[in-house]
Amino acid sequence: MTELAAQHCDACRADAPRVSEAELAELMHAIPDWQPVEEEGVLMLRRVFSFRNFKEALAFTNRLGALAEAEFHHPAILTEWGRVTVTWWTHKIGGLHRNDFIMAARTDKLF
Amino acid sequence: MTELAAQHCDACRADAPRVSEAELAELMHAIPDWQPVEEEGVLMLRRVFSFRNFKEALAFTNRLGALAEAEFHHPAILTEWGRVTVTWWTHKIGGLHRNDFIMAARTDKLF
Repeated sequence: MTELAAQHCDACRADAPRVSEAELAELMHAIPDWQPVEEEGVLMLRRVFSFRNFKEALAFTNRLGALAEAEFHHPAILTEWGRVTVTWWTHKIGGLHRNDFIMAARTDKLF
Repeated sequence: MTELAAQHCDACRADAPRVSEAELAELMHAIPDWQPVEEEGVLMLRRVFSFRNFKEALAFTNRLGALAEAEFHHPAILTEWGRVTVTWWTHKIGGLHRNDFIMAARTDKLF
């Protein structure tokens, strides 16, 4: 399998398939620092990144924001003093698409 | 009362008083678009700001980040496509200080 972080998002349609349980298990191996979390029935990927202060946290938020704009796929980014919590999922399908794993892997590269 | 948005944060000590219920009721009048919310026993102020897209949301996050750095008081900023959720509270006292109301009022001015 080509490394996830080297891949780009596919354009995602509302009828695109969510990842299956088997795919989820396989893909989680590629992004070991992320956790699958469920909120209101929607499965998401989440990771907390730690920083020395607010300025470094905000700088990371901006690097991630640039990546999100470049790929037309946008996470939820919680910026706090010394910490950024990133959550990826695909709104259109109400769950996880392969794109989200690619974006999680690419987020790791920005850290 | 001097307009909240024209004020600056006082340096906040761990033994600084939380706002009383009477002060809370008074101060909420000055920031009508904010809601008091309680998370794990900690009272906070929260407002959701709406934007046309991700880029505008992230620009607001950066304006708010600059204010936070200038005042040495930092909120939680959740940046999403078209929306920024801002939460103010004072970590040192585990609740709301007058500073948080000043910062909420100043956040409104950045919108």
